[in-house]
Amino acid sequence: MSKMISRRSRKAGLPPGTPVHIGQQAAEPTRISVLSYDEQNVTQTQPTLASECEVFRQSPLTSWIMVQGLRDIDALETLGRCFGMHPLVLEDIVNTDQRPKLEDYGDYLYMVLKMLTYREATHEVASEQLSLVLGPNFLICFMERESELFEPLRQRLGESRGRIRKMGADYIAYSVIDTVVDNYFSVLEKVGEQVETLEEELVSNPRRGIMRDIQRLKREMIFLRRSVWPLRELIGGLQRADSPLVSESIGIYLRDVYDHTIQSIDTIESLRDMLSGMLDIYLSSISNRMNEIMKVLTIIATI
Amino acid sequence: MSKMISRRSRKAGLPPGTPVHIGQQAAEPTRISVLSYDEQNVTQTQPTLASECEVFRQSPLTSWIMVQGLRDIDALETLGRCFGMHPLVLEDIVNTDQRPKLEDYGDYLYMVLKMLTYREATHEVASEQLSLVLGPNFLICFMERESELFEPLRQRLGESRGRIRKMGADYIAYSVIDTVVDNYFSVLEKVGEQVETLEEELVSNPRRGIMRDIQRLKREMIFLRRSVWPLRELIGGLQRADSPLVSESIGIYLRDVYDHTIQSIDTIESLRDMLSGMLDIYLSSISNRMNEIMKVLTIIATI
Amino acid sequence: MSKMISRRSRKAGLPPGTPVHIGQQAAEPTRISVLSYDEQNVTQTQPTLASECEVFRQSPLTSWIMVQGLRDIDALETLGRCFGMHPLVLEDIVNTDQRPKLEDYGDYLYMVLKMLTYREATHEVASEQLSLVLGPNFLICFMERESELFEPLRQRLGESRGRIRKMGADYIAYSVIDTVVDNYFSVLEKVGEQVETLEEELVSNPRRGIMRDIQRLKREMIFLRRSVWPLRELIGGLQRADSPLVSESIGIYLRDVYDHTIQSIDTIESLRDMLSGMLDIYLSSISNRMNEIMKVLTIIATI
Amino acid sequence: MSKMISRRSRKAGLPPGTPVHIGQQAAEPTRISVLSYDEQNVTQTQPTLASECEVFRQSPLTSWIMVQGLRDIDALETLGRCFGMHPLVLEDIVNTDQRPKLEDYGDYLYMVLKMLTYREATHEVASEQLSLVLGPNFLICFMERESELFEPLRQRLGESRGRIRKMGADYIAYSVIDTVVDNYFSVLEKVGEQVETLEEELVSNPRRGIMRDIQRLKREMIFLRRSVWPLRELIGGLQRADSPLVSESIGIYLRDVYDHTIQSIDTIESLRDMLSGMLDIYLSSISNRMNEIMKVLTIIATI
Amino acid sequence: MSKMISRRSRKAGLPPGTPVHIGQQAAEPTRISVLSYDEQNVTQTQPTLASECEVFRQSPLTSWIMVQGLRDIDALETLGRCFGMHPLVLEDIVNTDQRPKLEDYGDYLYMVLKMLTYREATHEVASEQLSLVLGPNFLICFMERESELFEPLRQRLGESRGRIRKMGADYIAYSVIDTVVDNYFSVLEKVGEQVETLEEELVSNPRRGIMRDIQRLKREMIFLRRSVWPLRELIGGLQRADSPLVSESIGIYLRDVYDHTIQSIDTIESLRDMLSGMLDIYLSSISNRMNEIMKVLTIIATI
Repeated sequence: MSKMISRRSRKAGLPPGTPVHIGQQAAEPTRISVLSYDEQNVTQTQPTLASECEVFRQSPLTSWIMVQGLRDIDALETLGRCFGMHPLVLEDIVNTDQRPKLEDYGDYLYMVLKMLTYREATHEVASEQLSLVLGPNFLICFMERESELFEPLRQRLGESRGRIRKMGADYIAYSVIDTVVDNYFSVLEKVGEQVETLEEELVSNPRRGIMRDIQRLKREMIFLRRSVWPLRELIGGLQRADSPLVSESIGIYLRDVYDHTIQSIDTIESLRDMLSGMLDIYLSSISNRMNEIMKVLTIIATI
Repeated sequence: MSKMISRRSRKAGLPPGTPVHIGQQAAEPTRISVLSYDEQNVTQTQPTLASECEVFRQSPLTSWIMVQGLRDIDALETLGRCFGMHPLVLEDIVNTDQRPKLEDYGDYLYMVLKMLTYREATHEVASEQLSLVLGPNFLICFMERESELFEPLRQRLGESRGRIRKMGADYIAYSVIDTVVDNYFSVLEKVGEQVETLEEELVSNPRRGIMRDIQRLKREMIFLRRSVWPLRELIGGLQRADSPLVSESIGIYLRDVYDHTIQSIDTIESLRDMLSGMLDIYLSSISNRMNEIMKVLTIIATI
Repeated sequence: MSKMISRRSRKAGLPPGTPVHIGQQAAEPTRISVLSYDEQNVTQTQPTLASECEVFRQSPLTSWIMVQGLRDIDALETLGRCFGMHPLVLEDIVNTDQRPKLEDYGDYLYMVLKMLTYREATHEVASEQLSLVLGPNFLICFMERESELFEPLRQRLGESRGRIRKMGADYIAYSVIDTVVDNYFSVLEKVGEQVETLEEELVSNPRRGIMRDIQRLKREMIFLRRSVWPLRELIGGLQRADSPLVSESIGIYLRDVYDHTIQSIDTIESLRDMLSGMLDIYLSSISNRMNEIMKVLTIIATI
Repeated sequence: MSKMISRRSRKAGLPPGTPVHIGQQAAEPTRISVLSYDEQNVTQTQPTLASECEVFRQSPLTSWIMVQGLRDIDALETLGRCFGMHPLVLEDIVNTDQRPKLEDYGDYLYMVLKMLTYREATHEVASEQLSLVLGPNFLICFMERESELFEPLRQRLGESRGRIRKMGADYIAYSVIDTVVDNYFSVLEKVGEQVETLEEELVSNPRRGIMRDIQRLKREMIFLRRSVWPLRELIGGLQRADSPLVSESIGIYLRDVYDHTIQSIDTIESLRDMLSGMLDIYLSSISNRMNEIMKVLTIIATI
Repeated sequence: MSKMISRRSRKAGLPPGTPVHIGQQAAEPTRISVLSYDEQNVTQTQPTLASECEVFRQSPLTSWIMVQGLRDIDALETLGRCFGMHPLVLEDIVNTDQRPKLEDYGDYLYMVLKMLTYREATHEVASEQLSLVLGPNFLICFMERESELFEPLRQRLGESRGRIRKMGADYIAYSVIDTVVDNYFSVLEKVGEQVETLEEELVSNPRRGIMRDIQRLKREMIFLRRSVWPLRELIGGLQRADSPLVSESIGIYLRDVYDHTIQSIDTIESLRDMLSGMLDIYLSSISNRMNEIMKVLTIIATI
């Protein structure tokens, strides 16, 4: 259950804006990689010093900066200074217990999302915080761990497939959010299969530990809900934002990803409903079996 | 339960606007038929090439284009180009896991509805996606399968009964939605009969598998709810839309179909309430029987 | 449960505005009676032809036209033409599965209400649709059956007691709604007595079939709720309506009947709460009895 | 349960504005007493005729008129005429099944509140309707019975303690409402103690009738809720009212009494939550005891 | 349960604005300490007379006045007079059963918060009322008891770490609220651990008294909810307040503490969900055990 409870108490008493890592897992080493492009050119760099990123802020190119691993607080603070980020933003980036949200700082937008992964071994859903800082010509992604999730997007950008290279940093931001939401469907399918399996088992052979499995899945659903629901508000906020950072041509894409978010929320709610029903089946099946035992007992007693 | 879960994961990593079929069933071959009319004339054609439909866009006549079966992606893309449809619309048309919704693209409105069918054999409700693209002088319907549902409407249009021939494409759109909603009542009556039968059985002879039947019906209700609820918003959106594509004279008809939608939502909620109550009866009836067995046992033991 | 489900499927495929009777009971023969008055005079007539009513539309007197029984579709259509009613209104009048609602057609307002009757024999609540068409100087009431409910109102109007004769058709409309709502209280008292009796029985002697009675009453409450809740919206709509058909002096009376509607909704919700609680008592009382049987059994077994 | 159901059916068929007493108890004889004051002077009178009150309407003094007991309909009607009250107000005053509400009649405000009393003997909460008519220089309180509740307020007014004598009739109205709400806390404390006692008993010795007591308390909570919830709206309405009858300087006091109302609503909701939890404890405690009996039985059977 | 019920009845009959201590615990002796500063200087004083504080109202420095213990009503009234506080504010300060709220009195803002403490010994959450009075150059904190909670904040202020010394009284107010909310996370972690422990126990060895522990925790959650939920409204109110007392530069910090409040509300709701699920596990585990006992019994009986 630990992942239900925010572990912010470690921070009590510190001044606001102090970046202290708070999260479920230990922080991983920080690695920066940059993809910088305009319609003609693409460059990929992997700066070893965070301060090398400063050039991208003034560059005429659009830059997508990926920061994977949040252990190196100094590097993050350097980066924060380079791009004029508020200390509270930095604090929220390393404190990975944030709820999904959107904050407009005028010069840039700050967004928090949750990336979900289904772990086959433990049948658990793991969550990772993804922070986005969207400026006029740059997008910075802060991730807790290295991840392959955005590889197809990087390739499309590198090989200039589709409209992606003609558009600005806001389109990259949209693409990143879209990828995250699409990934929710994979995770929900996996969880849905588990629910299905459980239900069949419940009907054919209600073994003893099944209640615990139902309860565990219910907990997963509470967790998923908390990760996905606020995203709806975030994207709605982007749609309504009258910030020059979000161009109008993006609106149609945001509507699309908004729909997908609603769809995944729908799926979560349906799964929750299914799980509630399963408890009822279980209880009635126990009562039924009891009745039968009693009948046997009565017959024997009669004899 | 599979129909509860959106199977979008197949799409992860693809650029937005790529039309890939996603749905519960395999795509069926594509067949196009057009009904083109003004107050005096009606023509019916069945173009073999999607590109033949281009003429209808500029025609002074009003055209109702039916596309049944979504397998032929190329034809759909051609059609999309002919009528200036956005790639995201095409993507949503073939991805048949959409929620009912209304989107205003300026030149045309895009709507998604769910058509429901009650399958007598399996006692299940099947759902099919119906996409409508409403332009100034055309309405395109995209359906997953061939269906007889709109035959009476086509006949009325052909034989010029009622006011239908004097009115524009928006009236056809209304008539299509009205037909879909009227059909919900047939499906709900069938489901309602099942609920009635189950309740009588529950009271007269609560057999063992009845809980499973109740649970199955509950699942159907969740499914029906998801298909019908968002329709209310869609029609409400049409009523409030200040698009030149929806003429004012249509408002009175939309109010009517809005009422019917509310009525079918009401019926769904009542059926859900009934099903919840049935579980309580079942549990108490089991407990009661148990009590009686115990009494018998006690009497025997006493002897 | 049949009365929970709208039987609109009979209409599927027909053009909108076709008046086909849809309802729980067979349609009764149509009988028209008119009460026409100003401050000085009152006339009562019973036209045999619907077309005779046309004079009342232009008359300087205020007319209250009662139509009881909906079998004679032709007469209704004639009446509709005489008073300029939209075909969709006629359709809704004969289709008695409407939800209570208010529709503003400019020249007249169309309202649907539910009249409730408690049937002592079957302990059931029956519902009948009452449609009101309110014009500048006329009110037409369409009822499914003959009913004595409005007799006192007719007498007051005839004998000129109170302010009723000085006021227009909107005041008659208010008086009709008020009478309908007042009648809800009689019905709710009857149902409330049933709930009380059931509760006493539950505590003193929980017989076997009691769960079924509770369930039946629960169903009645669902039904009552659906009939009464939307009325609140209807009256609220009348209060806010800026139609010349509703004079300002009526506002104070509408507020009064609005309060009564809220009161009856309150009563319904309280009764629902009571019924939910009764299930809990029942289950625990069964468990308790079981415990006692077991104790006896144990004592016997010990001996 | 009788107090849950509005007994308005007695009124069906009567013209609106007919004052007929409707309530849980028989009407008590009517007694009028007046307290008239300005900053310097206070006079107390007990007029025997209602018509004697007319002088207070034009008086430069502020008058607080208490009417206790509603049996003498004639006196009430006289009073109504003297102060220009609408017949519907009089009707609501004697019909003591009103919900708390606020109505603005221009010249005066009409308010309905519920006064609660805890009856130690029967452990029941009784409710009494308090109607307030607030004019520019008078406040009339209509109560069902004689009550000592406002004695401290009268004394403060008579002995000129605090700011009360410098202020107008609206401040008296506030003070009356404040007294009523403060009294809710006494009643809720008593009910809360009952809930506490019940819970301790449940844990230490769950006797048979306890379910019935829980159910009875639940019913009391439903009743309390209906009496207190609407008050919030009433006071909110007073705060927003732009009537010259409510001076701005009163706003700060209304905010205060609003807070207290919210607090008592909070307490009610918490008590309801507690009672729901108690059922669960009870059921599980029964099951547990059953288990133990069965174990004993098994051991004996084994021997 | 006592802490659920507001004990305001002691006040019934007193004029509004009479400061009478009402709370769960006896009032503690009053101790005042002041921290007065500008960018260069800091002074700490501990006035023995409340009237000594008057100088801070006119001082060019910013003053943070801490009042710990509310027994000395006279001192509080003196302080109230010195800073122009309304009698109703004083009343609310000593009446420690307030809900969290924000009130704008023009010259100053009045806020009520709840400070929570987890008592290891009894596993209970205790609550203490914190009242804030925010003026243009002063912040007065009224606390029920001495507390170490704000020590780190005082030290930061004294040693001039961070931006704190350059900013006004509103920043101190924000810092105080932030500290209170951060502390909620510590308390919630402790409660969360208890829930975790309980759940493990439930699964491994469901002892008899466990239902009572679940019920007790549920009660704690109701209590926590009531303390934390209204805070959201308070901070939202501060964000929207167009008072000169809240400078614009504070907005970004308020957004931050708002997020944390939402996060702690989320945690509370998740814990509540977990506890509801635990009851289901418990009931099914009892039923299961029963089944097994019965099987043993049947086997023995057979032999």
